[in-house]
Amino acid sequence: MTLKVIAYAHNGHTDKFGIPRQSREESPILTRIVFEPEFRVAEALRGIEHFSHLWLLWGFSELSSLTANAERPQDKPAVGLSWSPTVRPPRLGGNKRMGVFATRSPFRPNPIGLSSVRLVKVQRKKVQGAKSSLELIVSGADLLDGTPIYDIKPYLSFSDSHEDAQNGFAEDTKNRTLEVDWNGLEVASIPARHWTDAIRREISYILSQDPRPGYQDDPEREYKMDYGGWRIIFVVEGARVIVKKVEKV
Amino acid sequence: MTLKVIAYAHNGHTDKFGIPRQSREESPILTRIVFEPEFRVAEALRGIEHFSHLWLLWGFSELSSLTANAERPQDKPAVGLSWSPTVRPPRLGGNKRMGVFATRSPFRPNPIGLSSVRLVKVQRKKVQGAKSSLELIVSGADLLDGTPIYDIKPYLSFSDSHEDAQNGFAEDTKNRTLEVDWNGLEVASIPARHWTDAIRREISYILSQDPRPGYQDDPEREYKMDYGGWRIIFVVEGARVIVKKVEKV
Repeated sequence: MTLKVIAYAHNGHTDKFGIPRQSREESPILTRIVFEPEFRVAEALRGIEHFSHLWLLWGFSELSSLTANAERPQDKPAVGLSWSPTVRPPRLGGNKRMGVFATRSPFRPNPIGLSSVRLVKVQRKKVQGAKSSLELIVSGADLLDGTPIYDIKPYLSFSDSHEDAQNGFAEDTKNRTLEVDWNGLEVASIPARHWTDAIRREISYILSQDPRPGYQDDPEREYKMDYGGWRIIFVVEGARVIVKKVEKV
Repeated sequence: MTLKVIAYAHNGHTDKFGIPRQSREESPILTRIVFEPEFRVAEALRGIEHFSHLWLLWGFSELSSLTANAERPQDKPAVGLSWSPTVRPPRLGGNKRMGVFATRSPFRPNPIGLSSVRLVKVQRKKVQGAKSSLELIVSGADLLDGTPIYDIKPYLSFSDSHEDAQNGFAEDTKNRTLEVDWNGLEVASIPARHWTDAIRREISYILSQDPRPGYQDDPEREYKMDYGGWRIIFVVEGARVIVKKVEKV
């Protein structure tokens, strides 16, 4: 089967670094799903606004595969995707191997990702002299900006929800979050007129999810992460992220 | 992106008729996921037994598309798949149109299906003189026998479960089931040694899900459904399925 791209995802994750490892209900990250011309058909979304959640089926790009460097088998190339029977999930510190079908790793035979997101808004815009644009605004997606979307399905709780499912190796770390400390920030470095509560909330969320590649625990190390046109420079001490600096990229 | 078949599903649904419309937790239907030689690598499943539920990404075949005849737009061919912006979901009686992305219809741009299933067993068999076989036994799949599988992922409750999701047009009918009445059955017609409690439970479940194509309400009409080597002949009176006859196919 050959897949056609029906839409592209657009959000602040222009940098592979910082993309949450799974979609999460509580994520405030907004993503626009922008349909390709062939699929810019408002009728195809009729009734979708009555669903609170959607499934996105999407493609791991070469760039997004780099986010998974920590779990990449060492005998595999750094770019491009090739499948590997075992991978090293970042959740397990990057030093234990699991079967690829027991993980959500990109290094799978068919590199399709699956994410449930909250539907925020259906946006139909009439553009004068051009074909109308058609977008879905969703929250909670764990996608890189520019990710190709192959399918959108309604979430059906009676079929898709298993509240008590056993999460295997992911169980122990599912609620591991970091506290985010903004007190050490040089506020003077931020052009205040562009810095909104929303962007701060989004960046706080991303940092709380521990965006460090694999498991690293060097409190001396400064990390850089770009999001939404901002570069965040931070260190991690124990379970606390200390934001040092924010710059406009 | 071009997808490779990693496995095939095998179960009693040799007939397009009777396949449940969605995967359901309570379904007793067992399905074997049999890996293709290239992917018959036991290591690729390491750790999977610690997950209670899995996702299957699979392909709607031409045959399975026939199950959706009721929702097929009348200007589309009966076999083969082509996408349509709107479809008529069987749940809505087959006479209301919904946008294809608001449904799980097969008539989508990329005909990939998504089902959550319960993992029952990982089966690694050494076959003398041949490559070992590798299978997953799962329950609850809404798949036709022979369905190609493109991906298997662990179900992560903290990311995938939204117990209170709003189910749009599917909400009203999500618990609509029929009562199954075996009292009118000619028992003499069944070779008893092959007729197990398990098969009866499976067939009862399928009938309770109302396998009639679209919404039909003619109590005179006799329906035939094949499952697991059996042909079931039944009528439906109101909310009751009356099994008339069971034959070996």
